[in-house]
Amino acid sequence: MQKITILIHCEDKKAIIASVTNYIASIDGNIIYLDQHVDADENVFFMRLECEFSRDIWDLEAIKNHFQTNLATPFNMTWAMYPQDEKPKMALFISKYDHCLYDLLGRFSAGELPLEIPLIISNHEDLKPVAERFNIPFFHVPFTKENKEEGEKAQIELLKKFDIDFIVLARYMQIITPNLIALYKNKIINIHHSFLPAFPGAKPYHSAFKRGVKIIGATSHYVTEELDEGPIIEQDISRVSHSHSIEDFIMKGRDLERMVLARAVTLHAQRKTMVYNNKTVVFS
Amino acid sequence: MQKITILIHCEDKKAIIASVTNYIASIDGNIIYLDQHVDADENVFFMRLECEFSRDIWDLEAIKNHFQTNLATPFNMTWAMYPQDEKPKMALFISKYDHCLYDLLGRFSAGELPLEIPLIISNHEDLKPVAERFNIPFFHVPFTKENKEEGEKAQIELLKKFDIDFIVLARYMQIITPNLIALYKNKIINIHHSFLPAFPGAKPYHSAFKRGVKIIGATSHYVTEELDEGPIIEQDISRVSHSHSIEDFIMKGRDLERMVLARAVTLHAQRKTMVYNNKTVVFS
Amino acid sequence: MQKITILIHCEDKKAIIASVTNYIASIDGNIIYLDQHVDADENVFFMRLECEFSRDIWDLEAIKNHFQTNLATPFNMTWAMYPQDEKPKMALFISKYDHCLYDLLGRFSAGELPLEIPLIISNHEDLKPVAERFNIPFFHVPFTKENKEEGEKAQIELLKKFDIDFIVLARYMQIITPNLIALYKNKIINIHHSFLPAFPGAKPYHSAFKRGVKIIGATSHYVTEELDEGPIIEQDISRVSHSHSIEDFIMKGRDLERMVLARAVTLHAQRKTMVYNNKTVVFS
Amino acid sequence: MQKITILIHCEDKKAIIASVTNYIASIDGNIIYLDQHVDADENVFFMRLECEFSRDIWDLEAIKNHFQTNLATPFNMTWAMYPQDEKPKMALFISKYDHCLYDLLGRFSAGELPLEIPLIISNHEDLKPVAERFNIPFFHVPFTKENKEEGEKAQIELLKKFDIDFIVLARYMQIITPNLIALYKNKIINIHHSFLPAFPGAKPYHSAFKRGVKIIGATSHYVTEELDEGPIIEQDISRVSHSHSIEDFIMKGRDLERMVLARAVTLHAQRKTMVYNNKTVVFS
Repeated sequence: MQKITILIHCEDKKAIIASVTNYIASIDGNIIYLDQHVDADENVFFMRLECEFSRDIWDLEAIKNHFQTNLATPFNMTWAMYPQDEKPKMALFISKYDHCLYDLLGRFSAGELPLEIPLIISNHEDLKPVAERFNIPFFHVPFTKENKEEGEKAQIELLKKFDIDFIVLARYMQIITPNLIALYKNKIINIHHSFLPAFPGAKPYHSAFKRGVKIIGATSHYVTEELDEGPIIEQDISRVSHSHSIEDFIMKGRDLERMVLARAVTLHAQRKTMVYNNKTVVFS
Repeated sequence: MQKITILIHCEDKKAIIASVTNYIASIDGNIIYLDQHVDADENVFFMRLECEFSRDIWDLEAIKNHFQTNLATPFNMTWAMYPQDEKPKMALFISKYDHCLYDLLGRFSAGELPLEIPLIISNHEDLKPVAERFNIPFFHVPFTKENKEEGEKAQIELLKKFDIDFIVLARYMQIITPNLIALYKNKIINIHHSFLPAFPGAKPYHSAFKRGVKIIGATSHYVTEELDEGPIIEQDISRVSHSHSIEDFIMKGRDLERMVLARAVTLHAQRKTMVYNNKTVVFS
Repeated sequence: MQKITILIHCEDKKAIIASVTNYIASIDGNIIYLDQHVDADENVFFMRLECEFSRDIWDLEAIKNHFQTNLATPFNMTWAMYPQDEKPKMALFISKYDHCLYDLLGRFSAGELPLEIPLIISNHEDLKPVAERFNIPFFHVPFTKENKEEGEKAQIELLKKFDIDFIVLARYMQIITPNLIALYKNKIINIHHSFLPAFPGAKPYHSAFKRGVKIIGATSHYVTEELDEGPIIEQDISRVSHSHSIEDFIMKGRDLERMVLARAVTLHAQRKTMVYNNKTVVFS
Repeated sequence: MQKITILIHCEDKKAIIASVTNYIASIDGNIIYLDQHVDADENVFFMRLECEFSRDIWDLEAIKNHFQTNLATPFNMTWAMYPQDEKPKMALFISKYDHCLYDLLGRFSAGELPLEIPLIISNHEDLKPVAERFNIPFFHVPFTKENKEEGEKAQIELLKKFDIDFIVLARYMQIITPNLIALYKNKIINIHHSFLPAFPGAKPYHSAFKRGVKIIGATSHYVTEELDEGPIIEQDISRVSHSHSIEDFIMKGRDLERMVLARAVTLHAQRKTMVYNNKTVVFS
């Protein structure tokens, strides 16, 4: 059997579900998973389908054309269709912190992530040996206030050359340029080491310690031009107490960062996330 | 608008979703929520729908008949249809513990539970004053090894008289008879004070303490003839440490019992639970 | 045996623990619990002791005098000593929300809270029947922008008359005056329905919904003159998703508010909290 | 400054804390952390201290002798004293699962684990390349029903040769022999993929799926001769629902196993665990 994932969103109207499910039935597909959501305030309909087809009738281009004509055009849908055996290609952007990098590469090597990692880009040379341990091509692309344009140009060339689908900032410590954000809209995933919207910006563990919170967190979100304000994909928290120092916060936080980023990356790679109105729909 | 909730399960076949959603569209209903699940091992399909109809075309009996003829019979469905303004009637069974009782009556009084409480039945007189505080009719039905038959008879008469839909055992300390279980199949909810299947039976906090676990739990499940082995609706846990005594376990456990039982009762009253093969599907 | 709880904080110095534990041993007391904490940044030492003495040698005033002379004065300690059979007296301040009220009164009636509730004060009459159900004296003290001084005066008179030790704002919707805050410094406990410092001020669930967070929270803190910025006692969180409406956030939040406030009240009543530098030390 | 950690347990008696803290003060040590616990049922006293001494007065052997004479002998203490700059040496035992291995080696490489890893022992060759990636010596020690004695002998020789302090079974799939357990009493850490005591033995995820639990767990414990019944160090859980397959349970479980094992290993390496009566005291 050939499996595909379909993501749809459009204005909410009567009979959308019936129309879509009829269509799948009409082309001898079998729905093995269906999830839908209506944003009642915005009147927007979201749907995620997993379908299977026997291989002898399988013709992805024909299905796509037919879908466009018979469903997407009449309902004015934004949609995408992914064969489940096509893994998305992820670029890792890193700087000097290695804990998220080790975690993602360890999971990747253990066969847990449904994606490919064609390259790692870093603004420092420090973690090149880690990339080499895992046999992932490593590119040093310096990026400073002074060389922004040059740096961005080099990044984009590499991303194009390796046909990258999405970017993961694994504690990458530089700003992403508006050009790059526009090129990879809702396709750049960041991990911020606080429970957003609490403690945006720099040194959130220090701010959390100073405020005396009893719970710290981490947040993974899509990158937008507003720092730490993009659509949130996943968050998690850990309890702390007066007995924990800032160093303890940071150490506990590393566990949160690892876990939350890995979950967000997995959800994105499984095409389980949709973005609308600076929020995510996550069909998990 | 008139809203209804529909629960369906049947053997999984192609085009069920299309058939159901077509049907709703054909009678001018609007699907505002749809969730479905396929148990791939057992090949069983489950679905929960919330639909709304304009009141002028609304005729529940006609819809039910039509549904039976056009969908339920051809697909051999087990199904139920509930108008959302009909609240289920819950009987509370209690003994001497009052914490779950106070919690449920407090939530009920605060307007949080979508149900009615026509009566409370207890095998002791102790908590009659609590029932009176909340103006709920209280019936003392003694139940001992010696008077099982008589006790069961009195229970069933009261349940029938008050037209009870489901029963909640809020730390009720007597066995429910097989007859009563058969009468209220998958409609009797118990709270057990452990993380089942760990520590079934009596004194689970003592057993947990002796074993030195680092987490305790509570489990709400439908009652079957096998003690503590019915379909699980909800579970939750709380961290404990070496510094906690058995009394601490019990006190932390009371919070878990309250919370887990209240969630299970709410899910059941919202018709969000379905039972199959001694497991639950919970569309939450 | 007579049990007492001792709370101490002072500048950190060598040999404090030895001095205190020696002292207890020297007066034939037995330490049954000891917890200490050093705030290394501020160089402050905190300690909580539970000790027991046989009743025939028991003389609280003598112990206090001796403690002041031999320990508190030399080490310049801030300290308090509480016999464990003296329960603190709590005043409940409420407005129109009843869920935290029902929860606290239910727990109190179930014997879970180590405190007394001599009175409830409200700026509305609405919840008087709830107070009456639980036989707690209820006082309606109007409080508006126009009658602040009069309202505060009436509040303080009642608090003095009933010899109140601490105040709990169970979703009380008015500002507490600076005078009252000064009178009950670190003795007024509020519940805020967000994960502070995220979403301070009004309508936090609406803000959380708009931001698209994946986790909501509640925070209990001591009241200071800066709104929602007092020392945090306890926080907890609950997962939410795109499928939850604002109403779902509010309903899930009620559970958080109940739980977090009850825990903070219990910790305070057990004399397990100490405040320093706008943060709490919680020996739980 | 030179820091040491002291662990003590003995029969509970009056004035132990005073005696120990006096002693530290008397040798010009400064207590920077003290935690104690009394098991009231068993009348056993536990204590963990972190102390610092200026280096010029530092003489570990003298301190140890003095401690034995003046405290340990009179109070009949079981005790240990560890300079904080001496890292314990951990042997990893593995088979074919690589997720815990990648996680521990990633954390080790990222500098998070206060220990050394002189060697990895496996009953299969499969994961040798992983060990090589991280430059850890790898030894293939076959272990079958037929060669138990030979296998055990080879294991013990390696452990002695590399001066190993404790052993971590990172999803090692063979029984540990009673001899080895006796040699490393309370020093062999296992990760079991269920919430013990629920689902001991083989295939716990399958059993959990069949039972229809709503929460799965993982448990790290010291190995004793009774399978899965040793003292529990750490546990954690993850929510599951009807929508999760056994494969989903396994994947979510891998995250739990990684996290729980890493925490247990860290606690042990920080000398924060003590074992008594098949339970742990964990000063975290």
